[in-house]
Amino acid sequence: MIVVMRTGATEAQVLGVQKQIREMGFRDHRIHGEERNVVAVLGHVYPELADELATLDGVDTVVRISKPFKLASREVNPYDTVVKVGPVEIGGGNIVVMGGPCSVDTEENVLETARAVKAAGGHILRGGAFKPRTSPYAFRGHGEKGLHILAAAREETGLPIITEVMDPRDVGLVAKHADILQIGARNSQNFALLDEVGKAGKPVLLKRAISGTIEEWLLAAEYILSHGNRDVILCERGIRTYETATRFTFDINAIPLVKRLSHLPVIADPSHATGKWQLVTPVALGAIAAGADGLIIEVHPSPDHALSDGAQSLTPANFTKLIEAARPVAEAVGKTLAPAIGERESKIRKIAG
Amino acid sequence: MIVVMRTGATEAQVLGVQKQIREMGFRDHRIHGEERNVVAVLGHVYPELADELATLDGVDTVVRISKPFKLASREVNPYDTVVKVGPVEIGGGNIVVMGGPCSVDTEENVLETARAVKAAGGHILRGGAFKPRTSPYAFRGHGEKGLHILAAAREETGLPIITEVMDPRDVGLVAKHADILQIGARNSQNFALLDEVGKAGKPVLLKRAISGTIEEWLLAAEYILSHGNRDVILCERGIRTYETATRFTFDINAIPLVKRLSHLPVIADPSHATGKWQLVTPVALGAIAAGADGLIIEVHPSPDHALSDGAQSLTPANFTKLIEAARPVAEAVGKTLAPAIGERESKIRKIAG
Amino acid sequence: MIVVMRTGATEAQVLGVQKQIREMGFRDHRIHGEERNVVAVLGHVYPELADELATLDGVDTVVRISKPFKLASREVNPYDTVVKVGPVEIGGGNIVVMGGPCSVDTEENVLETARAVKAAGGHILRGGAFKPRTSPYAFRGHGEKGLHILAAAREETGLPIITEVMDPRDVGLVAKHADILQIGARNSQNFALLDEVGKAGKPVLLKRAISGTIEEWLLAAEYILSHGNRDVILCERGIRTYETATRFTFDINAIPLVKRLSHLPVIADPSHATGKWQLVTPVALGAIAAGADGLIIEVHPSPDHALSDGAQSLTPANFTKLIEAARPVAEAVGKTLAPAIGERESKIRKIAG
Amino acid sequence: MIVVMRTGATEAQVLGVQKQIREMGFRDHRIHGEERNVVAVLGHVYPELADELATLDGVDTVVRISKPFKLASREVNPYDTVVKVGPVEIGGGNIVVMGGPCSVDTEENVLETARAVKAAGGHILRGGAFKPRTSPYAFRGHGEKGLHILAAAREETGLPIITEVMDPRDVGLVAKHADILQIGARNSQNFALLDEVGKAGKPVLLKRAISGTIEEWLLAAEYILSHGNRDVILCERGIRTYETATRFTFDINAIPLVKRLSHLPVIADPSHATGKWQLVTPVALGAIAAGADGLIIEVHPSPDHALSDGAQSLTPANFTKLIEAARPVAEAVGKTLAPAIGERESKIRKIAG
Repeated sequence: MIVVMRTGATEAQVLGVQKQIREMGFRDHRIHGEERNVVAVLGHVYPELADELATLDGVDTVVRISKPFKLASREVNPYDTVVKVGPVEIGGGNIVVMGGPCSVDTEENVLETARAVKAAGGHILRGGAFKPRTSPYAFRGHGEKGLHILAAAREETGLPIITEVMDPRDVGLVAKHADILQIGARNSQNFALLDEVGKAGKPVLLKRAISGTIEEWLLAAEYILSHGNRDVILCERGIRTYETATRFTFDINAIPLVKRLSHLPVIADPSHATGKWQLVTPVALGAIAAGADGLIIEVHPSPDHALSDGAQSLTPANFTKLIEAARPVAEAVGKTLAPAIGERESKIRKIAG
Repeated sequence: MIVVMRTGATEAQVLGVQKQIREMGFRDHRIHGEERNVVAVLGHVYPELADELATLDGVDTVVRISKPFKLASREVNPYDTVVKVGPVEIGGGNIVVMGGPCSVDTEENVLETARAVKAAGGHILRGGAFKPRTSPYAFRGHGEKGLHILAAAREETGLPIITEVMDPRDVGLVAKHADILQIGARNSQNFALLDEVGKAGKPVLLKRAISGTIEEWLLAAEYILSHGNRDVILCERGIRTYETATRFTFDINAIPLVKRLSHLPVIADPSHATGKWQLVTPVALGAIAAGADGLIIEVHPSPDHALSDGAQSLTPANFTKLIEAARPVAEAVGKTLAPAIGERESKIRKIAG
Repeated sequence: MIVVMRTGATEAQVLGVQKQIREMGFRDHRIHGEERNVVAVLGHVYPELADELATLDGVDTVVRISKPFKLASREVNPYDTVVKVGPVEIGGGNIVVMGGPCSVDTEENVLETARAVKAAGGHILRGGAFKPRTSPYAFRGHGEKGLHILAAAREETGLPIITEVMDPRDVGLVAKHADILQIGARNSQNFALLDEVGKAGKPVLLKRAISGTIEEWLLAAEYILSHGNRDVILCERGIRTYETATRFTFDINAIPLVKRLSHLPVIADPSHATGKWQLVTPVALGAIAAGADGLIIEVHPSPDHALSDGAQSLTPANFTKLIEAARPVAEAVGKTLAPAIGERESKIRKIAG
Repeated sequence: MIVVMRTGATEAQVLGVQKQIREMGFRDHRIHGEERNVVAVLGHVYPELADELATLDGVDTVVRISKPFKLASREVNPYDTVVKVGPVEIGGGNIVVMGGPCSVDTEENVLETARAVKAAGGHILRGGAFKPRTSPYAFRGHGEKGLHILAAAREETGLPIITEVMDPRDVGLVAKHADILQIGARNSQNFALLDEVGKAGKPVLLKRAISGTIEEWLLAAEYILSHGNRDVILCERGIRTYETATRFTFDINAIPLVKRLSHLPVIADPSHATGKWQLVTPVALGAIAAGADGLIIEVHPSPDHALSDGAQSLTPANFTKLIEAARPVAEAVGKTLAPAIGERESKIRKIAG
């Protein structure tokens, strides 16, 4: 941590800062600059110390040097984390595709979508049983009944399931049914919830907050990791910017940057990030080319191109085309699409046979 | 709701949209424009309908016309809500000032701050017992013990207390001790928590989310109001923008706009919005001049101007100056500073005597 | 400037950085931190050096310490600049109000507005002769003819005039007629134009760019100041953020911050910052309470409350109310509204008499 | 254009709006909604009309329906524009790569970089002779001398050259030397400059403004197109957001969206958009996968990996790797890297022979 003194700070002020640093149990180191003095603070500093030192007389600003996340950091753990979810491996050169409806409606629809996701080569079924809704008057999901519908679809298709949990009191229930617990963008700094999923013993997909910085996102992961749960998957889902032509702005810079800063797998959610189904496939391909480890895509079965449940959902036909388009892009950057669930099982049987 | 067709949409596509609208139970109304056709949707539409219609063939965009919040709306309730908290009235021409430490530390410090807040003319004591922290390694507050410290300070000074609740499971506990429940910026769309405080029977101060729109903020209030709790106080605490010279950007436009859109009182938090104690007083005065109903200010007792717990906290001396400066600004815009707690009691006694 | 090495950077890498710093003519100073090494760079560093050093092997980041603006800085010049424009003084405890139409239309309308601005107690007449327009198909102003119309209005009313210049080739022409040259938000980093107005010998009002940082804004002022033109007035006109409920977000934090960083006067443009005339007066009052030195307001004469040229223009009646409301707010923060042009002249005559 | 009346607007107010619309020469069409009345405005409306109608009594908001850009619109011209620059075609299934130094320094360096760009398979040489600089004290480029250096490099290598023009007075000079005129992000709404390059008879690369919306960007293109210059290339170079971990946020959503809205080619500038050379290649590949027609990349010859002129420049070796990596990604999305300049000339000779 570096304390920058004001131009014209007095000798007494600089000495006061140095004295305070030592009294707080750190070492100080003064540098006489051309325009200003600066004092380095040495020892096991913590982020809040910056605020504390900033109020001392004569101080202009305090600059933090250390990164505040540890367990999520690639400096601490240089090897890519691979999260295993049933037969699926997320991270480590595989491209994994999750697909399914925004919210779980009827058992028939979910089953139909699950079959379509599997047939298209998708690996994991997504669907919301508990839905965060901006308005209290909107449909908030089927809750536990929705979890049973998802579990039935897994039963038939073999696809692992991912679903959102929003309330710390529901973590046990959701963890009983889901293969991956999803933390949504609006709960990315719901620390009570992060603590609970850290203790739940299931992989967690952690979406970036709506205007979360990369540092805040990795610190939210750190909450989960600090409880001993190492199976954290990051998910870039677009950030809020001034541009309103799309629902959010997909931050593609974040993909390679987070891969450098952290060993955790990163997947992309182009459905929420764009809000327009016509943009989902190009942005999905862009994310893979930039280094994403997978995709999470809204799919809804509306075979007659009629009414879908959202401007951002793909039809099963378009979802199939997305996966076909993703395969050569993955290969162009030296990765491979994870084997389809059926194929993999067949392969295992063949090998076993 | 207005469905805008693409330039060149076919007659069949327009008819298809009209048919769909009628099948969904709404009335349709077509307008032949110079460049495009548009179809108005009439009836009790809901926000999600826009997404549903946007996917129909030939549709360019769907424009929402209605405001999605009702109970929070001034169109529904034209009269200013005044929230009563013990002897204090928030809203309705009064300027109310809340002050206190960011987090509750020792009983002595909190008591000392409470006395200073009261002596300065402050009306409500703030202090964090449960603290949201970006890093899992930072101090998260004293929890229940902190609530007892705050209650003791109320006991002595007569100041009502406001404190944050972050976990739906803690709402009952916090509501037992606090006079106002605070929902922080990171929980402004924590819908499970909003539901709980809506049922808690205590006034709620609802901060705007870090990048919350005004519509989202009023819809979050709608969650609380829809449970029958009408004592909601809005709090503008700065939004996240590209500017890093201050911690957040205080959105002063929001003050008069929300006062027009809603009947709820709005208070300002210049401490978090600026992150720099030197800017707290000017922004606080600006907020009052623009129509805010009060302030919430970080105060920390560091009588020797030495170490405070944050770059954004005022000393008791500066807090006193802030209130002295706020009084003539309040009067310049036709309001009055709410009577100090002691004065009021004295007045009541005199009248009674 | 502080070079922060990566955790685990080798001794050879640190020595390489130190060697490079010395070879570039600076002094180096190494600090052994708990986690990382850092190397301070001492001497007359320049902003680009940070980029150059950031590419060296083993470097994590480079942190700038110095402020890049000099002539605009209060550290260099601690005394408030007061800009004199005819009988008006901008800065130094005076609140100055500029008013007038967005764009100059007919001579009658401009004259009528000028009379209304003067009668209301306004000090300077604003009006656009050259208009920046987002679309090439919109009306771009009357150009030179508009300047003559403004000059005629000054002739009659005695109000100095301010008008925008957009093209370096027009600076001479505009400077011949205008009392203050306005640089609009879209040209705030048009460096060719900044150079020209720096040489034009007339006061300049410099708007902040649409997403300009405070540092960029002060550096744009530095361009003008560096040509020897010391009469620069800063103007906060709202920044672009994610919030669409208002046209821009008025950054009230910037007012007291810029007053601390710089000695230049700062005025507020609540018309553009809000885009809604109903919000203009409250935000204007907020800006004054926060320390602004004046206002620039769109006024349009539409005496029958019918059609005005913009959702953000005040009628003369509302402009008069704004000035009446501004007076007690100015006094509440220890300032005074500058004397109205007529009053002042009368006073001068009386004294002279 | 749709005029939305307030809930509770009187019949007289609605009639007043309808009368005003007719008096202005448009047709009106009233719709009686459940909560509100709306009035459609029919005829050749213009964007400013929205502001004019918004001030009428009883009006809540006015919603624009038409798109304000015409010549840039794919609705007007459905066929992809292909811009021909010497032997290079930009758009239409080709991926074109521009490379070169941020600013032109010595003739040797530029020549060396030009040879490296050509050897790597790059198609166009970029380099700044006139440099926009945030600070007036930074190096602003060699001006005309820089243009001669670039022309000499074209002479030797056959690479067409692109360079920025910042001042309307320099357009003639720059157009004499350059093959493509570049409009930088800070000048994207410098309308005097856009007018000049519209008349210059040379292709123009138009960067998006630092916080430009997609609509503003296409309207800036419209300025150039409206002068009869149809050779406009759009360039996404990152937008300003709250995230500071990268210099800007590359808006990958904009690539497929602009390709849908407009027929103009779109290229990507990952160097400025990320500000970190380690992120340039992944983001470049992402842009191509999402549909970009090419890249513009900062390259600087620093053969010993020592000091480069910017944290965002690639070495020639890394630039070569980027082009090698781009080839299979382009092919994965059905495009091809444009033939290298040498190859193409050889091919032409062979065919001619």
